[in-house]
Amino acid sequence: MKNTLGSSVSVTIFGESHGKMIGAILDGLAPGIHVDEEFIASQMNLRKAAGSISTARHEADAVKIVSGVFNGKTTGTPITFIIENQDQHSRDYGELAYKARPGHADFTASVKYHGFQDFRGGGHFSGRITAGLVAAGAVAISALKTKNIRIGTHILSCGGVFDRNFGDLGSDIASLSDKTFAVLDDNAGEKMIAAIEAARNDGDSVGGRLETAVAGLPAGVGEPWFDTIESVLSHALFSIPAVKGVEFGDGFALCDMRGSQANDSFRSIDGKIVTDTNRCGGILGGITNGMPVVFRTAVKPTPSIYKEQQTINTETSENTSLVIQGRHDPAIIHRARVVVDSVTALVLCDQLALRFGTDYLA
Amino acid sequence: MKNTLGSSVSVTIFGESHGKMIGAILDGLAPGIHVDEEFIASQMNLRKAAGSISTARHEADAVKIVSGVFNGKTTGTPITFIIENQDQHSRDYGELAYKARPGHADFTASVKYHGFQDFRGGGHFSGRITAGLVAAGAVAISALKTKNIRIGTHILSCGGVFDRNFGDLGSDIASLSDKTFAVLDDNAGEKMIAAIEAARNDGDSVGGRLETAVAGLPAGVGEPWFDTIESVLSHALFSIPAVKGVEFGDGFALCDMRGSQANDSFRSIDGKIVTDTNRCGGILGGITNGMPVVFRTAVKPTPSIYKEQQTINTETSENTSLVIQGRHDPAIIHRARVVVDSVTALVLCDQLALRFGTDYLA
Amino acid sequence: MKNTLGSSVSVTIFGESHGKMIGAILDGLAPGIHVDEEFIASQMNLRKAAGSISTARHEADAVKIVSGVFNGKTTGTPITFIIENQDQHSRDYGELAYKARPGHADFTASVKYHGFQDFRGGGHFSGRITAGLVAAGAVAISALKTKNIRIGTHILSCGGVFDRNFGDLGSDIASLSDKTFAVLDDNAGEKMIAAIEAARNDGDSVGGRLETAVAGLPAGVGEPWFDTIESVLSHALFSIPAVKGVEFGDGFALCDMRGSQANDSFRSIDGKIVTDTNRCGGILGGITNGMPVVFRTAVKPTPSIYKEQQTINTETSENTSLVIQGRHDPAIIHRARVVVDSVTALVLCDQLALRFGTDYLA
Amino acid sequence: MKNTLGSSVSVTIFGESHGKMIGAILDGLAPGIHVDEEFIASQMNLRKAAGSISTARHEADAVKIVSGVFNGKTTGTPITFIIENQDQHSRDYGELAYKARPGHADFTASVKYHGFQDFRGGGHFSGRITAGLVAAGAVAISALKTKNIRIGTHILSCGGVFDRNFGDLGSDIASLSDKTFAVLDDNAGEKMIAAIEAARNDGDSVGGRLETAVAGLPAGVGEPWFDTIESVLSHALFSIPAVKGVEFGDGFALCDMRGSQANDSFRSIDGKIVTDTNRCGGILGGITNGMPVVFRTAVKPTPSIYKEQQTINTETSENTSLVIQGRHDPAIIHRARVVVDSVTALVLCDQLALRFGTDYLA
Repeated sequence: MKNTLGSSVSVTIFGESHGKMIGAILDGLAPGIHVDEEFIASQMNLRKAAGSISTARHEADAVKIVSGVFNGKTTGTPITFIIENQDQHSRDYGELAYKARPGHADFTASVKYHGFQDFRGGGHFSGRITAGLVAAGAVAISALKTKNIRIGTHILSCGGVFDRNFGDLGSDIASLSDKTFAVLDDNAGEKMIAAIEAARNDGDSVGGRLETAVAGLPAGVGEPWFDTIESVLSHALFSIPAVKGVEFGDGFALCDMRGSQANDSFRSIDGKIVTDTNRCGGILGGITNGMPVVFRTAVKPTPSIYKEQQTINTETSENTSLVIQGRHDPAIIHRARVVVDSVTALVLCDQLALRFGTDYLA
Repeated sequence: MKNTLGSSVSVTIFGESHGKMIGAILDGLAPGIHVDEEFIASQMNLRKAAGSISTARHEADAVKIVSGVFNGKTTGTPITFIIENQDQHSRDYGELAYKARPGHADFTASVKYHGFQDFRGGGHFSGRITAGLVAAGAVAISALKTKNIRIGTHILSCGGVFDRNFGDLGSDIASLSDKTFAVLDDNAGEKMIAAIEAARNDGDSVGGRLETAVAGLPAGVGEPWFDTIESVLSHALFSIPAVKGVEFGDGFALCDMRGSQANDSFRSIDGKIVTDTNRCGGILGGITNGMPVVFRTAVKPTPSIYKEQQTINTETSENTSLVIQGRHDPAIIHRARVVVDSVTALVLCDQLALRFGTDYLA
Repeated sequence: MKNTLGSSVSVTIFGESHGKMIGAILDGLAPGIHVDEEFIASQMNLRKAAGSISTARHEADAVKIVSGVFNGKTTGTPITFIIENQDQHSRDYGELAYKARPGHADFTASVKYHGFQDFRGGGHFSGRITAGLVAAGAVAISALKTKNIRIGTHILSCGGVFDRNFGDLGSDIASLSDKTFAVLDDNAGEKMIAAIEAARNDGDSVGGRLETAVAGLPAGVGEPWFDTIESVLSHALFSIPAVKGVEFGDGFALCDMRGSQANDSFRSIDGKIVTDTNRCGGILGGITNGMPVVFRTAVKPTPSIYKEQQTINTETSENTSLVIQGRHDPAIIHRARVVVDSVTALVLCDQLALRFGTDYLA
Repeated sequence: MKNTLGSSVSVTIFGESHGKMIGAILDGLAPGIHVDEEFIASQMNLRKAAGSISTARHEADAVKIVSGVFNGKTTGTPITFIIENQDQHSRDYGELAYKARPGHADFTASVKYHGFQDFRGGGHFSGRITAGLVAAGAVAISALKTKNIRIGTHILSCGGVFDRNFGDLGSDIASLSDKTFAVLDDNAGEKMIAAIEAARNDGDSVGGRLETAVAGLPAGVGEPWFDTIESVLSHALFSIPAVKGVEFGDGFALCDMRGSQANDSFRSIDGKIVTDTNRCGGILGGITNGMPVVFRTAVKPTPSIYKEQQTINTETSENTSLVIQGRHDPAIIHRARVVVDSVTALVLCDQLALRFGTDYLA
């Protein structure tokens, strides 16, 4: 499959940055799930450009649901979300028809699609395409809530500034849900924003780390090979533009531990099995153990910067230089957070339906 | 799919640590590829237990090919590899029928499979099951060589000791191919082995990082969504037992860079497009750019240690303690390296067949 | 997968009979294929209600392409087709919210979706949903023409009247391409139409057989197990509403032959291998042999009839009777023909891309 | 996927007629299902060559289960079945290395696999490969019995002689279960056997129709698009060698009915919804309606006959003639019956697991 993720619950996305519409089809969710259009809109807002630290392109991102919902509830058949593009400035992209922006997909797209791709604004490779994922993800998040499964992502680092770690998951996840700049420690958040503005003022950009926790997942979900929970989540996460690393639990830090430090001891508390630490991130042998699933996602700095860069002309294969015009984000990490939540929800809905049947989340 | 990876070229694995046989079916490779049984045996040797730093369980790991090869060449139909288990000591596992080893899949398996799983030696979750992947991977590696695509993995760190980075890829990959402890700097390797032995002497274990480079891949392979090259490789890598992190190119280090540092400038040299750095790890927009694909894999320390650990009885849900008996590896990173090479080869054969057709690698 | 067909080239459909929009996403076609909007419109016309022998519901079926086409050509990324519903008469369906129409999916939908399905006009089960398949299929048909592969379907029988068999395929396929009532022998067609009208006048309906031929397919496409060409075509054909049988070549008639009659002898003519008969329908061992692929599809009579029928109330499980109101087709076979052509084209594009790579049809 | 069928419950097959082993991997069945090796052996017997009406090749077909079963029960991980080939007479096939047998896959295999296929005895295209399906299918049949779902197939016609139709399903299915020549009316069976012997004496062969009924399936299983129950069953059935037609319920006979005849009226009897007829074969809108699923499968006459036939040399593309030597079946329909039961069971296990979760059949 190409633009489709998942099997029992799946999402298919479409659209280009400067095309008529973008959107998504979400298929396989149980019938009878309440579809809350206000919640969808609020999730869309979390993905939107925000003030001085984002692009000047502003899209209403009004989501229209044109199938799969009847009397405010899912029908069990495909739910289609469409979003019209409105604020394209295609004239900004003239030179980019043939000059490959470093760090972008322009060159690889021109090789793969032999020059027929819609290059305007990154076309189908644009981060804008994630808007469809966020719309579909909002319904997936609602589906998970029917079983009290909650997802929260915070900006663990941005521009070298670090947020505090997760503490009490219940209150932390709740506190993140409507923050447009999702940090646990607002002081850290202010420093991050300052770092983004400093980069913007230099015509440059910054990256960061996102940390996600999922509370409430039952134990026993996932496969030993090859659809481990790590496999299916990383598969989805690495398709989000700019993601270059994913780690679960203590991740790369485990490489430098000994087994006696890394192993999480099991404890039985009132008949419920828990672990005293959670270095494995809630996953053992690819399968959930009932503890929170925790992972971190590396987001590279936005490749669209205003400094002069060396590149090539994709038509002539000659060396040239490029100064990018137009409107771009000096950071996307605060906008990527809701995309991570969304694909996480979509993947987990699929895994739960595969494990417990198509009516489980209803 | 559960124990099957890939679509046009796929691998299906089976077996348990203490069952009769383990193995794999490799399907979809082009017909006419020479199957070199000596090369398969040499790859199996790289995965085998090695001296003082590995388990005392020794398996011949003789691979029998029982279908899909005719007159020494692939037929295009499923290639089946079977490997008999010979050196099981199932008596060592009595207590483990009901005590969950921390860091292992015992608990999650008992939840998922309701106690019906073959628990002996980790059963289907055992690292031993990777032997089938290595056998299949050896033929995939041979297939890639028909197009001069080469894969090399070294132990970047183990027990806190670091190897040097990749330099000249051609010679580095060649130098790694038959090393049982795959480092680029043998002095570093000796220190790593000392660290493993020290852990073993403490009844403990160590983890490490693997770094992989793939040279010779054509540009234009992979999908923007959701089957990015990062997605499909990480999917496979995270199904290798003990892997808890994967990063491409500069990975997590990119989080702390600015865009002007992170972007790889394009250069045209004699009509061939290259980048001057390779921080993106040869992948832009999910698609290969013709530069080497580079990634790192985090391997947690082996969870089987000899120290007393706190755990629970999976039958009674009571707290208990456990001292693991039997034969175990104080480190598996040197054995995991060929598994990483193997799944990488399998994934790339699939991607190339999807892109260029089923006869491409022949 | 649920509403998605195919893997390398895939189609995903959405919508309900009385919803806002229906449509399809076509993914994986090669870039650079000319998208002929006039041809799409003409294919849509073939599916439309036609005069006295069809429903009185008239939809403009104007297809908007909102992604995946740039400068009149495919980009290689998902092509999205949307079609607005305009002529719904939802008031006609009041009683059908709880009375299951015999022969329809009302009862099975209410069991599967627990009553949350959009029941109006059959909802997602409506034949109307095939409009999206026809739009996507039109582009697939154009893609196949780049390799001179042609598909033609005629109404082999309707209401007990039979058309002549295929003769010269080149001219027969050409003659069918723009007929709204696709028969090879127009006299037979007139009798069929008379049979439809007679049924309509009785408040009843008729069924029929469609026969399809595909000329120009290369030999060597398909798999021995389980994706035989018969398997993948029948999979798609049996998802068209009202299809209850599919046979290839001489099909069920082969059951009563001896091997000496049924076998097609091979002949070499000017270096090209052909068979003297084509009882196998161009497929041996699941793989194309270079002869035309020929199959027949059984279409049951339209279940919406105006006679009183016995049924049950799906809410109370009580027995009741039903007289269907509203606008319905006394026959759909003439409209189903282009749907068969469309899914055939979609399946073959997928098979060819899997075999020869994603750039083959361009 | 190529040699893999199904997603939640899947089967992968391997092997060649004259290779070392054939077999199958069955993955995804619930843990805890009793594996009855005697039942597997009895199912294998039903597929075996039988006396004067079958090939003289006799294989023990002893099935070894080498993974996935522990203490006599399924573990939930892949179950591997291996069967050694023992009675190959490869010398019989010398000429067939380059002469394509009419009606066989020799020619299409040589095109697809460029001459690298194992041609001996039909290689991977041999009906012998179905032995792995029967072994796997036996366990799937046992799994279905845990929910009282029963499958029965009889030879509806052979050599032009017809069996009676299904009557009381419970007793008919039971009566078929251990018949080596599965007819409901033993007089008809004797006439069929006489027809097979007559064909054999002429150096010829015969075909026939199989009719299958599945009792006990719950309503609400299957998808409207594209995985209708008809789609997924026909997909599997058409991969059985020699199958050229599949019809559900009244199938092709529906083409000549009017809607008022074809529609099955619903009736509520003691709160259970049934239909008074079952012309739709238990499937409406692609979804089970709780009535028996009924279908017929067309099996062409065995292509290996002893009469001289015209063909080509696949190496030189020259015309030649062929008289097939060796041991062949004058009919395979009586052996194919258990293959139909097996793939039906495999497909239904998959559908039920997708619908109700992986623990449903246990």
